[in-house]
Amino acid sequence: MPMTILPDELIQRFVSIVGDKNAVRDQADLAPHLVENRGLYKGASPLLLKPASTEEVAAIMKIASETGTAIVPQTGNTGLVGGQTPRSDASDVILSLERMSRVRDIDPVANVIVVDGGCILDTVHQAAEKVERMFPLSLGSQGSCRIGGNLATNAGGTAVLAYGNMRQLCLGLEVVLPTGEIWNGLRRLKKDNTGYDLRDLFIGSEGTLGIITGAVLKLFPKPKGHQVAFAGLNSPADALTLFDRASTLCGAALTGFELMPRIGIEFTAKHIPGVRDPLETPHPWYALIDISTSDKAETAQTMIETLLEQGFEAGIVQDAVIASSEAQRQALWHMRESMSDAQKPEGGSIKHDVSVPVSKIPDFMAEAEAGVLQAIPGARICAFGHLGDGNIHYNISQPVGADKAEFIARWREINHIVHGIVLSHGGSISAEHGIGQLKRDELADIRPGIEMELMRRIKTAFDPAGVMNPGKVVKI
Amino acid sequence: MPMTILPDELIQRFVSIVGDKNAVRDQADLAPHLVENRGLYKGASPLLLKPASTEEVAAIMKIASETGTAIVPQTGNTGLVGGQTPRSDASDVILSLERMSRVRDIDPVANVIVVDGGCILDTVHQAAEKVERMFPLSLGSQGSCRIGGNLATNAGGTAVLAYGNMRQLCLGLEVVLPTGEIWNGLRRLKKDNTGYDLRDLFIGSEGTLGIITGAVLKLFPKPKGHQVAFAGLNSPADALTLFDRASTLCGAALTGFELMPRIGIEFTAKHIPGVRDPLETPHPWYALIDISTSDKAETAQTMIETLLEQGFEAGIVQDAVIASSEAQRQALWHMRESMSDAQKPEGGSIKHDVSVPVSKIPDFMAEAEAGVLQAIPGARICAFGHLGDGNIHYNISQPVGADKAEFIARWREINHIVHGIVLSHGGSISAEHGIGQLKRDELADIRPGIEMELMRRIKTAFDPAGVMNPGKVVKI
Repeated sequence: MPMTILPDELIQRFVSIVGDKNAVRDQADLAPHLVENRGLYKGASPLLLKPASTEEVAAIMKIASETGTAIVPQTGNTGLVGGQTPRSDASDVILSLERMSRVRDIDPVANVIVVDGGCILDTVHQAAEKVERMFPLSLGSQGSCRIGGNLATNAGGTAVLAYGNMRQLCLGLEVVLPTGEIWNGLRRLKKDNTGYDLRDLFIGSEGTLGIITGAVLKLFPKPKGHQVAFAGLNSPADALTLFDRASTLCGAALTGFELMPRIGIEFTAKHIPGVRDPLETPHPWYALIDISTSDKAETAQTMIETLLEQGFEAGIVQDAVIASSEAQRQALWHMRESMSDAQKPEGGSIKHDVSVPVSKIPDFMAEAEAGVLQAIPGARICAFGHLGDGNIHYNISQPVGADKAEFIARWREINHIVHGIVLSHGGSISAEHGIGQLKRDELADIRPGIEMELMRRIKTAFDPAGVMNPGKVVKI
Repeated sequence: MPMTILPDELIQRFVSIVGDKNAVRDQADLAPHLVENRGLYKGASPLLLKPASTEEVAAIMKIASETGTAIVPQTGNTGLVGGQTPRSDASDVILSLERMSRVRDIDPVANVIVVDGGCILDTVHQAAEKVERMFPLSLGSQGSCRIGGNLATNAGGTAVLAYGNMRQLCLGLEVVLPTGEIWNGLRRLKKDNTGYDLRDLFIGSEGTLGIITGAVLKLFPKPKGHQVAFAGLNSPADALTLFDRASTLCGAALTGFELMPRIGIEFTAKHIPGVRDPLETPHPWYALIDISTSDKAETAQTMIETLLEQGFEAGIVQDAVIASSEAQRQALWHMRESMSDAQKPEGGSIKHDVSVPVSKIPDFMAEAEAGVLQAIPGARICAFGHLGDGNIHYNISQPVGADKAEFIARWREINHIVHGIVLSHGGSISAEHGIGQLKRDELADIRPGIEMELMRRIKTAFDPAGVMNPGKVVKI
């Protein structure tokens, strides 16, 4: 057992709410909940609680608030900024929503689904599929991430271009407040202008303002046509031109436009089973273009052919393939989605999740490459991502043969270089992963004082006792 | 001059910021700023200020905050809930953004436009048009309403179905806080997960948390195909079925689906010059269907023909016309947009701006009609609106020959009946117009105590001196 400042009598009060078998105190069982995926953060905790209902969550928060006990909400534990990891002094109790994983209701005519905060993203996909609808949020971790966490981090993923991020996909919330009160904001309305936008304040607040225990999400008609192309390009500038043409040609039918570098294709072909370079000769850059059409299947095919023809004629597409089956479409997306995993066998990777206005992508890429290579000659830049959203995962693999620990030790230094260039283009240091612990202090450094002050005022107004995921996002 | 509690020395301090010729004190000149469009509210004020810059707005708010002087921001004065009208004790200073009406920047590649808070909506439309782009917000008042007010009220309009309301159309804001500090949140990013969502908190706060002096708005590619149909239907239930088919068939290409009753067509044909019933025989209900396609013009035509064919075959469309020219498309929309004005010659009208989940529209319409006719036999219900968003303008014209004043005196009573039915279906008492003065107390009655408490905490955290449009939205 770790040393904890929490008295046993207090722990017993918490345990009695959920029952012994839903309270984890054994450190071996707790262990997977104390670290995040990349191993950047490791915390400690004497207790994990698994409430079965909103009322149990509320009862936990009431005691927490009365006794000043910090609560860390956790859903799929797939976050990438340490927002779900307890602090290291074993003073935080973890609250897991894994037992609250139901689909509460689904209405295909109104195009809504109502789910528990602990509902797994894939469960939502399957429930929508059963009624001939579609829920567009698509993430690598969709088999384990849960809706409460997706909302708490305003998750993005690969379908943001056409459908938006979680904030755009959510109509209503049920939230347990730090004080243990329950806010029932489970509205199913597309339009509702009745006072301050509490919903969007909770979305993206990373569990620091309350615990999202339920949500109303939007569903969409399933597209009838779907087509994917993979194109070899000479530069990010050509990719931007192609994106601009694709937007104009396809409008809302353009559901994905991803940029990848040559080295990313090499890494995936080398390390990910079944992946091979789809084109005959190498190209410096690649675009993955995804088109979904609602009227009929052929429109997607016509659109993608027209786009590639225009691209060839303009000299911006060097070579391309169009997927000829659903299996090929999935294979092309699999390559893109494996790009981060494919870096792992290549040693240490310093990561960034940044965005700039889409028109600034080429300048950003050139300046960041120059800055990084000046600092670490031989660094292998594997910058890929959602070009259509201006969101690049600017990942940097260590030079061949370099010492991994020494390379990773330069994380902050390299962040500083890349983020400086991002900010010079009016960009964001966290496009979709959030702030958590990882970027909390950096955010305070780069944002105007008044902005941080407003965030602190909100935090204090919602969580006067300071018990709701303290130490994340904003320092009080 | 009205009696005012503001000392002349204080008024002089305000005047000195903007200069004499930009400070209105003459009551004849002030008069149009003291009433709102429907004449429901009439306020009093000794002073209207027209700052020319964000810095001047900030200087005004600094003095206001120091001296506890209430400021009412006003843009196009087209709001419908009294949010822009000063209170009646002549203690509020009006701050007009009409001199801050510039387009600051436009970037067609990034699809963004940056404008002053006082920029007229039509100016944004024209600027977008010049660079082959489109800004989708479309309102009857677009020639006079201004972006700051559109944002402050989270304006909706006729294109919400495909493009969302102002919250979805805005990327960044510049806001002068009640304390006179300036928050520069003029980001141009589609993805930015860096802390609490201040932007969406200011949007829809109706000038009670700060003054929106600048905004970054999204632009879209201009659709290539555009087609409008007008269909005669038997019931709201058939309209809902048709809408469901249209959504499935057209997906994001379905840009408008408006419901209108027979009496609305009669009123417009009678009172609006140039409007005539487009169909040969009368039908109880009508749908206006608007389709915009990005790939080519013909797709819109094919889609609308297919939809109407399906509707005829299923027996849900009784008769229909497809516009054969841009002039006809505009004429059909003009009929829809004149529906509120066409009620005026028919005497008093009690209005509601409500929303319910779209699947509940038929039940809501039936129950509301029964409730209203029981209270006022002979009342003429002219309920029309954005069926696709679940948003109905449930307007009720007085019975023929009734006394207008007596009818209007029953506004609250009828609101109570209609809103009760709305709430029983999980709906909203203000879908797009906001709360202002008109619905402030009713909101507090119907919403859970904790929700109003959170709003009050936010208001107090942002505006500790209580000087920012006091008395609107939430009572402190």
